[in-house]
Amino acid sequence: MIIQLEPNIKADQLQQLEERLDAIRYSTTRVTTQFADYIIGVGKAEFDIRSIGTLPGIRDIHRVSDAYKLVSKKWKVEDTVIDLGDGIQLGTGHFGIMAGPCSIESEEQIEKTITHLQQEGVRIMRGGVYKPRSSPYSFRGLGIDGLKMWYKRTREAGIKIITEVMMVEQIEAMADYVDVFQVGARNSQNFNLLDALGEVDKPVLLKRGISGTIDELLQAAEYIFSNGNERVMLCERGIRSYETAYRNTMDVNAIAMLKEKTHLPVIADPSHGIGLRRYVDKIALASIMAGADGVIMEVHEQPEKAFSDGQQTLSFPEAARLYRRMRQAYELREAF
Amino acid sequence: MIIQLEPNIKADQLQQLEERLDAIRYSTTRVTTQFADYIIGVGKAEFDIRSIGTLPGIRDIHRVSDAYKLVSKKWKVEDTVIDLGDGIQLGTGHFGIMAGPCSIESEEQIEKTITHLQQEGVRIMRGGVYKPRSSPYSFRGLGIDGLKMWYKRTREAGIKIITEVMMVEQIEAMADYVDVFQVGARNSQNFNLLDALGEVDKPVLLKRGISGTIDELLQAAEYIFSNGNERVMLCERGIRSYETAYRNTMDVNAIAMLKEKTHLPVIADPSHGIGLRRYVDKIALASIMAGADGVIMEVHEQPEKAFSDGQQTLSFPEAARLYRRMRQAYELREAF
Amino acid sequence: MIIQLEPNIKADQLQQLEERLDAIRYSTTRVTTQFADYIIGVGKAEFDIRSIGTLPGIRDIHRVSDAYKLVSKKWKVEDTVIDLGDGIQLGTGHFGIMAGPCSIESEEQIEKTITHLQQEGVRIMRGGVYKPRSSPYSFRGLGIDGLKMWYKRTREAGIKIITEVMMVEQIEAMADYVDVFQVGARNSQNFNLLDALGEVDKPVLLKRGISGTIDELLQAAEYIFSNGNERVMLCERGIRSYETAYRNTMDVNAIAMLKEKTHLPVIADPSHGIGLRRYVDKIALASIMAGADGVIMEVHEQPEKAFSDGQQTLSFPEAARLYRRMRQAYELREAF
Amino acid sequence: MIIQLEPNIKADQLQQLEERLDAIRYSTTRVTTQFADYIIGVGKAEFDIRSIGTLPGIRDIHRVSDAYKLVSKKWKVEDTVIDLGDGIQLGTGHFGIMAGPCSIESEEQIEKTITHLQQEGVRIMRGGVYKPRSSPYSFRGLGIDGLKMWYKRTREAGIKIITEVMMVEQIEAMADYVDVFQVGARNSQNFNLLDALGEVDKPVLLKRGISGTIDELLQAAEYIFSNGNERVMLCERGIRSYETAYRNTMDVNAIAMLKEKTHLPVIADPSHGIGLRRYVDKIALASIMAGADGVIMEVHEQPEKAFSDGQQTLSFPEAARLYRRMRQAYELREAF
Repeated sequence: MIIQLEPNIKADQLQQLEERLDAIRYSTTRVTTQFADYIIGVGKAEFDIRSIGTLPGIRDIHRVSDAYKLVSKKWKVEDTVIDLGDGIQLGTGHFGIMAGPCSIESEEQIEKTITHLQQEGVRIMRGGVYKPRSSPYSFRGLGIDGLKMWYKRTREAGIKIITEVMMVEQIEAMADYVDVFQVGARNSQNFNLLDALGEVDKPVLLKRGISGTIDELLQAAEYIFSNGNERVMLCERGIRSYETAYRNTMDVNAIAMLKEKTHLPVIADPSHGIGLRRYVDKIALASIMAGADGVIMEVHEQPEKAFSDGQQTLSFPEAARLYRRMRQAYELREAF
Repeated sequence: MIIQLEPNIKADQLQQLEERLDAIRYSTTRVTTQFADYIIGVGKAEFDIRSIGTLPGIRDIHRVSDAYKLVSKKWKVEDTVIDLGDGIQLGTGHFGIMAGPCSIESEEQIEKTITHLQQEGVRIMRGGVYKPRSSPYSFRGLGIDGLKMWYKRTREAGIKIITEVMMVEQIEAMADYVDVFQVGARNSQNFNLLDALGEVDKPVLLKRGISGTIDELLQAAEYIFSNGNERVMLCERGIRSYETAYRNTMDVNAIAMLKEKTHLPVIADPSHGIGLRRYVDKIALASIMAGADGVIMEVHEQPEKAFSDGQQTLSFPEAARLYRRMRQAYELREAF
Repeated sequence: MIIQLEPNIKADQLQQLEERLDAIRYSTTRVTTQFADYIIGVGKAEFDIRSIGTLPGIRDIHRVSDAYKLVSKKWKVEDTVIDLGDGIQLGTGHFGIMAGPCSIESEEQIEKTITHLQQEGVRIMRGGVYKPRSSPYSFRGLGIDGLKMWYKRTREAGIKIITEVMMVEQIEAMADYVDVFQVGARNSQNFNLLDALGEVDKPVLLKRGISGTIDELLQAAEYIFSNGNERVMLCERGIRSYETAYRNTMDVNAIAMLKEKTHLPVIADPSHGIGLRRYVDKIALASIMAGADGVIMEVHEQPEKAFSDGQQTLSFPEAARLYRRMRQAYELREAF
Repeated sequence: MIIQLEPNIKADQLQQLEERLDAIRYSTTRVTTQFADYIIGVGKAEFDIRSIGTLPGIRDIHRVSDAYKLVSKKWKVEDTVIDLGDGIQLGTGHFGIMAGPCSIESEEQIEKTITHLQQEGVRIMRGGVYKPRSSPYSFRGLGIDGLKMWYKRTREAGIKIITEVMMVEQIEAMADYVDVFQVGARNSQNFNLLDALGEVDKPVLLKRGISGTIDELLQAAEYIFSNGNERVMLCERGIRSYETAYRNTMDVNAIAMLKEKTHLPVIADPSHGIGLRRYVDKIALASIMAGADGVIMEVHEQPEKAFSDGQQTLSFPEAARLYRRMRQAYELREAF
């Protein structure tokens, strides 16, 4: 059960509500976000929802029996649109492209990528400064200094930054230089990190785990939301299947289903989704038809030399062609 | 190695060739299809391909080191287009829709479906008369009598039939009433059935196994082809993954990759692919963007009453809307 | 619902029963096996089971709501023991070892294997004469002639034969030379083959599909049983998972669960289960602790030269050591 | 390449070595653990290993081409035995049992569990004070206060504590009260946490990810090891497969393979491995036969009332019976 409170609910009204919930043995969690105040009730008793909904100080009440609640479309019918400022929006009706290298490597690389994005009208740049690497002996990114350098360049260019955060301790130092925090697949159930991102006033793009279910992804989003941050996006990035012909198996089914289950924006990552450069375009277009609100993808001036994931990285001309096709596919879909 | 022979190759030329292959210890398989004569050589020795290619009686020769050979694009660059007659073609450049019920149930059902298909310009009807069922106590289809009844109606209507064959013994009796034989996912490695379908002069649509790999699917197609039947189509119908939110996990990655690896037409089955009616449209459209040459889907006048797989079956109005969208999506894709 | 009939049930008693079942709208299947007569009823109505169970001509009646029925332990509490003659039994309390090559290759190979088995007290020999092969260009076995040669040698030696049957048409010719028919993983849902094996008076070892569920395996066994053959064994042979470090992922959980769900014997195939020779012993022993009634494994005088699956084949000394360990592990387990 | 340095290597010797490695373009990582000093070199050049191995100050040198190095048996042939003090050892030759509740709930629960463990001679108690929960609205454990209470009781009883740590910030406060840190499946690629645990002087039990590969698990262990902590154990806890009959699919293949690939102890978690109480015993015994050095399992005085994971928790009598069986199975295995 979700109860949205009136902003000016009085202490005695709140107490009355809590007593009522206590009487039916519901455990409650108070949630305060940028936008509203909620009480989440979890319990088993049957009761007349009107007996609570008509109490003073309550704006709205709804039963939601799924494990996830505030992120469910059963609670919030209207889709969430996330505003990044400067006219950049993400969510239903606002197709978004986020492109850039796997890793931020150098100032020169940043410049070239920004020039490419500006030419193609792409306004969000992706790139890693903290890289999760399977081996401890691999390059782990330029860190906070790389981020600051990158930040400076993007401001001049009117480009927004999305980058991965790997641990709670990084958040504070990063927050001033990041427009969207990304949570990687390996951290999609790092609950402490999710909690902490709930307290940040920046949007979060949350990737599905490598073998995460739809339900786990939505509950992970609920962690962020219920800690206070309503500005969450979900990202399908390919799952681990038995098939070894591709690095991951992009699951467009998840995109279709997530758009029905949640009001949050859903982004596709075709680069990791299939992990093979020559198929990224088809998978990106398929994802749009499945319902994606945006695409995050890896591009590099010289994909062969790109740090760590060159196999799935598009060149600038390949990417430019794909941006155009994606916009056309999105336009057709919206016209349906 | 694949060697295509001249149609009029002489006995002594053939003998010379076989001796040459024997000398390098290649084991050979002679393949005769509707369209050509081939020798498939399998071996390890290094040799100068010209020393064989320049022999008399040889039209073409090519190294193909994959496990599948004749179905590979490395052998045949030009995509295969399958002609069903009456102007109906399947393959690159010819988008095809196959629609109909899970099971053929009655004459009335056939009539209604045909009327629907004619109104929407769909020219191939799917339907099962032999149904693979997990339980021995379930309805297994109307059998050959159902097929004959169905056949009669389609001839008048100019509609082609695609239906599943489950065992070698059924082929002969069915062949006169079938336009395309379908091999189901559970039989995708029933090698005796594949062998037998190689000797039939009807196109075959071969479904990927429930956990079949790309490589296994192409080798299964090679079975049919190397037994004499070049008219094979491949069908992605969803794989078994850990995700239980949908009945199967439609793998559009496979569609994208198959279109690169083989010259055979690739068909998508979004009905089984996700197994949930409300998402079939998005998955169908995604499949087209991934490269599908056609779509096979379940439709029924009253999906709730459809035999066995109502959960994934579209109503006629839902299907009609999807046909139009699919054609638009295909048109956009071809314009890229 | 399962109803076991009295052997001498009279026509009017049967009619009365059928009318009663008709009245509650249960669809029925009559099952006659080597051992008994049954009626399987499938329906939804609630009814008092005594109202049917007390009818004349009925020996036993039981509700079984699982999709599989006759193979369920809910129906038959006592475990099935399959008698191969000559004092060889398989099932609870009778540990069985089946060993031999992947493929029957030659008379010499048969002799050597038989000598090995006799020395080690193993009384069932496995081997393929019809081999399911992914590629149409691979060796597919010596066929019926190989089987006859093999049969002759085993009779003299008091060794039983288990071998794979791949298609309905092979059954009749093979039946005289086979002690146990094996159904391979790729055919585990080849329902026509299962039907036909239900009509044969030989035990059947049914392998789990490459990505088959417990439930599908039990329903496949129900096919054989309900067509008249109660002598069915189940075999866990590894499933397809995301892990590529081994060829298959032996699923000992399935062994533990099958022994609870069904009265049929459960056999482990550690050779295919992990597919790597150096681990076969540990996987065999683990399977026994999980509850396996027997083990089927690949052995060869010269594993490196074994046809097709040398990677997972044990040498005779390796196998001999494992037989002894398996017997010790089984003894300990039975003493628990 | 791994180079173990002499403890008293001189600065100029070290410089000489580094120059030599630099000359062949190997990137190096200096590793200092509780026990030794190493340099890990990663590069592609061919070179004569003696040209480095004979330099002064070098104790040992070895090529290891796997992605994991120090944890590989190719480097350290002798198996690692971890000493917890008070005569409690884990690793080859020292079978260990760790038992206790999913969550630490109360002082009374701790007392009862300790009494049970003491009666059965089990000397390591498991239990969670920080619980990773899919839903933000679930109980997340008693935290540090629960740990302190638990710690106090175990000291009197001579019982060791293993408990999960979820984030870097928890380590310092927990370290005084923990005998073995556990890293859960969801954190198995939380690289920052692994780094931090490398700097702690406590053994670590590292669980395989929910769909983690053998290779990823070994690389995760390499993170801990290469940050300075050699006392790492690996734990197989079931993987995510397509099979829904059990909560996870215990992968005994991994146990068998890990014992070959690494010198670290390998522990089995049959409770999570299958997730169903009635099969835990068989899976535990199977794991031992596959090579496990120990077993971690959930027990509770009243499993039905256990916090969060009652479905897989054994009662004290069930557990007591299993301890005895496991010891017998281990003894038999060691006698092989």
